[in-house]
Amino acid sequence: MLHLVGLGLADETDITVRGLEIVKRAERVYLEAYTAILLVDKAKLEEFYGRPVIEADRELVETGSDDILAGADKSDIVFLVVGDPFGATTHTDLVLRARELGIQSNVVPNASIMSGIGCTGLQLYNFGQTVSMVFFMDNWKPSSYYDRVRENVQIGLHTLVLLDIKVKEQSIENMARGRRIYEPPRYMTVAQCAQQMLETEEERKEGVFGPDSLAVGAARVGAANQKLVSGTLQELTTVEMGEPLHSLVLLGRRTHDLERDYIREYAVNKDTFDASYAKAYGASL
Amino acid sequence: MLHLVGLGLADETDITVRGLEIVKRAERVYLEAYTAILLVDKAKLEEFYGRPVIEADRELVETGSDDILAGADKSDIVFLVVGDPFGATTHTDLVLRARELGIQSNVVPNASIMSGIGCTGLQLYNFGQTVSMVFFMDNWKPSSYYDRVRENVQIGLHTLVLLDIKVKEQSIENMARGRRIYEPPRYMTVAQCAQQMLETEEERKEGVFGPDSLAVGAARVGAANQKLVSGTLQELTTVEMGEPLHSLVLLGRRTHDLERDYIREYAVNKDTFDASYAKAYGASL
Repeated sequence: MLHLVGLGLADETDITVRGLEIVKRAERVYLEAYTAILLVDKAKLEEFYGRPVIEADRELVETGSDDILAGADKSDIVFLVVGDPFGATTHTDLVLRARELGIQSNVVPNASIMSGIGCTGLQLYNFGQTVSMVFFMDNWKPSSYYDRVRENVQIGLHTLVLLDIKVKEQSIENMARGRRIYEPPRYMTVAQCAQQMLETEEERKEGVFGPDSLAVGAARVGAANQKLVSGTLQELTTVEMGEPLHSLVLLGRRTHDLERDYIREYAVNKDTFDASYAKAYGASL
Repeated sequence: MLHLVGLGLADETDITVRGLEIVKRAERVYLEAYTAILLVDKAKLEEFYGRPVIEADRELVETGSDDILAGADKSDIVFLVVGDPFGATTHTDLVLRARELGIQSNVVPNASIMSGIGCTGLQLYNFGQTVSMVFFMDNWKPSSYYDRVRENVQIGLHTLVLLDIKVKEQSIENMARGRRIYEPPRYMTVAQCAQQMLETEEERKEGVFGPDSLAVGAARVGAANQKLVSGTLQELTTVEMGEPLHSLVLLGRRTHDLERDYIREYAVNKDTFDASYAKAYGASL
């Protein structure tokens, strides 16, 4: 059987008791290591589980899924996923491939950033669709996310923005020369995300959001050193949130008073928060 | 310290290793028992934890929160929540009360139905706002949810519908006479939800959805006997999903081919599924 086991958000102890039991008795254990990261490294997981863990990069999962699934008809193979197996990044492709091979799948759910973001004090009921923000390059600044944010903004809902990570990326030169040399990992920060959002608005000029729009920056959700900051997008462009992973929530107009009170507590600046809030937010608007 | 510990979705083994450690060493352990249920009872939890668990009903949480928090400035008090502490039902009020009393809070995240619903094969990115469906009564059939579903439908997004549960409810007569006699618990089924949705559409006649609209019924998400069914709302009015808890997802027009393939596998009737799908769904529409 193929077991997709969610690891949760922070460290090795965020696995569920059920998940841990399966990991301990499985034949092989893979760790999906290219769309999200835990705040501890693989060695820490191996020590905690008392067994080796095989790192699965994008290449292995996308082109070598049959290697992962080898023998799963007779024994238990575990595929560990940071967060929830069907959370932000879905692994339906692996399940579908297993199904084709006649291999059963079992999913062990866990916390995902898509529910964990409730730690901000914003109600999950008030979120619209989630969007992703990729690292802009000089000649490639995709703004399709902007259209989806607009849909949420028009209804008055919050938008969770998930931030890009680059792990095991090759430079164009190394890729062209077929050299397996990888760039250091990069994790987008709340400040970079806010900056890019304002860049898109500058370019599109459709007024979906602006420097005074309120947002929440969240770092290391679910960890002991979790950090939350609220402020205007302009303020967030210079905020220092520390280690990855970061996420951002653009506040919707329909914000409830209870939500406002909760996020105001961790505002960068309560005066600018109140001023921006009074202009454009509140359930009655 | 006040610890809000998520229990996940199915049984006693869905708690995280970190959560279990806190439960074992805490001074008192409460279980929030009125907005969601695990698929095992309190005795099973107590046996698994090796300690007593105090059931916290709505009354205790809403009016007796200071009793729950008593001593939390000096020792560890745990408040167990089915799913994630900040999931579908938020407990920000308890955290805010603790903050007023100068008591620190710690949250241990876990799987929530709001991310666990990814098990349907539908991408969480394609969901709009979540709505709740309450039990209709003869003279009370609230349809405010219908307006929110319309917002999602207009954009083409899926809608997760969370279904009402009634635990420790009094009959009007018993309430009037001040008798603490409670009705047996009731859990809304997928069939009841689909029926009520069609009733609302009959009444409002705004064409937000209809008997041919496609939806997914999900029962016991995350459990070994999890059950998924897809079909038209009309078909789902007679579907038998078994034990609680149930949820429903109304399919959005923007469904991706991969999502369609995944949910078609568990269609009540593949022919009616294909016919309905061809009429109104698909990413290109």
